Amino acid sequence: MSKEITSRAADYSQWYNDLVLKGELADYSAVRGCMVIKPYGYALWENMRDALDKMFKDTGHVNAYFPLFVPKSLFEAEEKNAEGFAKECAIVTHYRLKTDPNNKGKLMVDPEAKLEEELIVRPTSEAIIWNTYKGWIQSYRDLPLLINQWANVVRWEMRTRLFLRTAEFLWQEGHTAHATKAEAIEETEKMLHVYADFVENWMAVPVIKGVKSANERFAGAEDTYCIEALMQDGKALQAGTSHFLGQNFAKAFDVKFSNKENQLDYVWATSWGVSTRLVGALVMAHSDDQGLILPPRIAPLQVVIVPIYKGDEQKAMIGTKADAIIKELKALGIRVKYDDNENTRPGWKFAEYEMKGVPVRLALGARDIEKNEIEVARRDTKEKRVVSLDGIAQYVESLLKDIQQYMYNKALVYRDEHITKADSWDEFVKLLDEKGGFISAHWDGTGETEDAIKEKTKATIRCIPLNNEPEAGQCILTGKPSTQRVLFARAY
Amino acid sequence: MSKEITSRAADYSQWYNDLVLKGELADYSAVRGCMVIKPYGYALWENMRDALDKMFKDTGHVNAYFPLFVPKSLFEAEEKNAEGFAKECAIVTHYRLKTDPNNKGKLMVDPEAKLEEELIVRPTSEAIIWNTYKGWIQSYRDLPLLINQWANVVRWEMRTRLFLRTAEFLWQEGHTAHATKAEAIEETEKMLHVYADFVENWMAVPVIKGVKSANERFAGAEDTYCIEALMQDGKALQAGTSHFLGQNFAKAFDVKFSNKENQLDYVWATSWGVSTRLVGALVMAHSDDQGLILPPRIAPLQVVIVPIYKGDEQKAMIGTKADAIIKELKALGIRVKYDDNENTRPGWKFAEYEMKGVPVRLALGARDIEKNEIEVARRDTKEKRVVSLDGIAQYVESLLKDIQQYMYNKALVYRDEHITKADSWDEFVKLLDEKGGFISAHWDGTGETEDAIKEKTKATIRCIPLNNEPEAGQCILTGKPSTQRVLFARAY
Repeated sequence: MSKEITSRAADYSQWYNDLVLKGELADYSAVRGCMVIKPYGYALWENMRDALDKMFKDTGHVNAYFPLFVPKSLFEAEEKNAEGFAKECAIVTHYRLKTDPNNKGKLMVDPEAKLEEELIVRPTSEAIIWNTYKGWIQSYRDLPLLINQWANVVRWEMRTRLFLRTAEFLWQEGHTAHATKAEAIEETEKMLHVYADFVENWMAVPVIKGVKSANERFAGAEDTYCIEALMQDGKALQAGTSHFLGQNFAKAFDVKFSNKENQLDYVWATSWGVSTRLVGALVMAHSDDQGLILPPRIAPLQVVIVPIYKGDEQKAMIGTKADAIIKELKALGIRVKYDDNENTRPGWKFAEYEMKGVPVRLALGARDIEKNEIEVARRDTKEKRVVSLDGIAQYVESLLKDIQQYMYNKALVYRDEHITKADSWDEFVKLLDEKGGFISAHWDGTGETEDAIKEKTKATIRCIPLNNEPEAGQCILTGKPSTQRVLFARAY
Repeated sequence: MSKEITSRAADYSQWYNDLVLKGELADYSAVRGCMVIKPYGYALWENMRDALDKMFKDTGHVNAYFPLFVPKSLFEAEEKNAEGFAKECAIVTHYRLKTDPNNKGKLMVDPEAKLEEELIVRPTSEAIIWNTYKGWIQSYRDLPLLINQWANVVRWEMRTRLFLRTAEFLWQEGHTAHATKAEAIEETEKMLHVYADFVENWMAVPVIKGVKSANERFAGAEDTYCIEALMQDGKALQAGTSHFLGQNFAKAFDVKFSNKENQLDYVWATSWGVSTRLVGALVMAHSDDQGLILPPRIAPLQVVIVPIYKGDEQKAMIGTKADAIIKELKALGIRVKYDDNENTRPGWKFAEYEMKGVPVRLALGARDIEKNEIEVARRDTKEKRVVSLDGIAQYVESLLKDIQQYMYNKALVYRDEHITKADSWDEFVKLLDEKGGFISAHWDGTGETEDAIKEKTKATIRCIPLNNEPEAGQCILTGKPSTQRVLFARAY
């Protein structure tokens, strides 16, 4: 095997990079901080996108597409939002190249083609969208607007990591407009639940739903709801956010509507998004030292069949049997591949599909067919079992469901074992350094304390869980009174 | 009706804009030359994208995603390609904004955040992709690479039109790599046929398949194949192109592979693309003075049911019957909407769905139900018919197929009536001015003559049809000998 990967124990970060590169999910590119999403990684993203897209449509949303560029004057209209993203903006200043007179065959930016107003490559689309909504909304009859966009965005990051933090990434951003505050908050919460449903039931990654502290809010939001997942190294990862934007953008872009009483009021807004970052979360939540482990519901390939044969006669016989199995599996909607490539041996194939995280591997030999049997191997537990060929398709279908559930349960057990209460500063620091995971602790509710904790430990408040139980206590850092515990963690 | 549109006869160009805006396909944006694709227009594009995507996958292609930005040094590597796009490039020069010290609340480009190397916003992705392929291709075993990308691209156009020519547009671009010239040419032609199949059988727009003259070739291609469609004003529209790129990009990016004989050779390339421009073609090919006419296979909504009632009792009864019909239609995979909105009257609804080009409208009243009947109206011919409610779903299913075929046939008759032979210059000019359409004429084969004809008449060679019959003749402009006719037209 040429494709050895670093173990988690040796270097978790390198293990992750190895998985992404050798699992053929993505590759580095010639553009600083930007990655290439390879076909296998993109197929995974397509499955995630399609599942989410259906959930959005089932909850009444429609897709649209808004421009990539945001004129600077629009970008700066909502001040907090602008301030939050100003330091990470790619900026288009010119619209033409010309031949470089001093450098044969080379091009240079044409200084005469300078834009009157610079264009920001969207880091998020509230500004351009709310400027557009102004023309679409006059009356309560035009509301709600429930629009989603699948797009690329750019945030200039100094330190990048494949999928987790890249200068350009793919995402969806929902932008909704409502007549009342209550309705906008309801939408914000609804989409949080949609995200949680997707991440838990499709990605098999348990999440904690909560709201962010003021420090961690989206720039321009009144409230940011989030789902937080736990990776195998005990660090948290924000898997999706849903923002209640109040009337901030409506005021910045002067978007008013006449309500049923014929009075003018500013429109209420939400926005919510998940990105290709989820692919990174998926990799880190489930995989092992042999490669990726992908949950069946979104795995590009759910089943691979590898023939074990000597000579053309055996190969033909196995091929015929495999065809019949494939037909049955496909009839059940299962994504299956038959790999009879002659350039590689079965052992190499086994390692390759293990690396790629294909949930179920079937190995079929001539003697198996004689015995009316087949070898079934699960990727997640590595368990192998010889089963009857009778009803094999139904067996595999049921196994894929078991694997999906097993992966979720395993991640849930790990996650629940890694939510620990801390009641003193020393305990807090020790838990962070030695155990990791979420630490449930009292906090005095101020941004200053949160900043101080972050500076001392690199841990941040991941969220204040929804339906948190009130509990009187003392802030672990300042000792000041607190009314509830919040969840801290080091995070991606 | 507030939504009146300009007639084709009065102003074809304004008619088109009216349809796009009032049919709610797209809207202008605050960004020069960029449009907003509205939900109805985007749903149409999604149907087109999904159909094409399936055709690409069925022919062995996979999707991937490459960076939005192309560093200038890569962009200029293939000189012809670079030269062809240099004048229409949006260029990122800075990566940060900062507070403007002289202008409270405003931002300015931070001069200290200037990029060492400028980034071009991709106008097409050959450069970034072939630079990536270099790392992926070593041996003939790595070939062919059959990759497609769905993405946004930017080409800075001075004069823009909704869908037809916008600074940013959505498209797909296939980029394939092959071991032999023959295989690359085969791929180029295969994808041309895929495009023709899609445009004819899904969009109901007949096309002529051909190759471009050297003047009209894609910058960096050895040969450009195209499909050309005819709009109702007699102007042609290039609906898709497929390029045989030879070894140009492999040489520019030094992409070699060892062949079966273990010799190093440059890789052969193709690229092919269609864009949101197709939405413009669809609008102009079929619609009329009352609004859009969309072909059933890609219409976002195929059937609308409008209840005609007085009072709640009738409304409830009609609603129950409509539910049953909708259930049957959905079971047949038909996209249907029931519009019982009380804020608008049936007449308004009829006009609205006519504007939006919904292929079939069903009107259902209390008396219809008594008589076990329903009124069925086709959008394309405006024909209305009262039919039995028994088997209504099957009737509608069959009608949708008829409409699809009828729309294609109608466009085909128009197109075929507008391919005219011209054997003299006077005849050529007269046909262009008075009849329009494609003009089949002899041409001496030189770029100079083609340029001269374009300058005199604004007509260009749209293509040299595939399987063109050889025919000796004389160039209509220069009188020099010619071996075949080619198709000229004024074009979008």
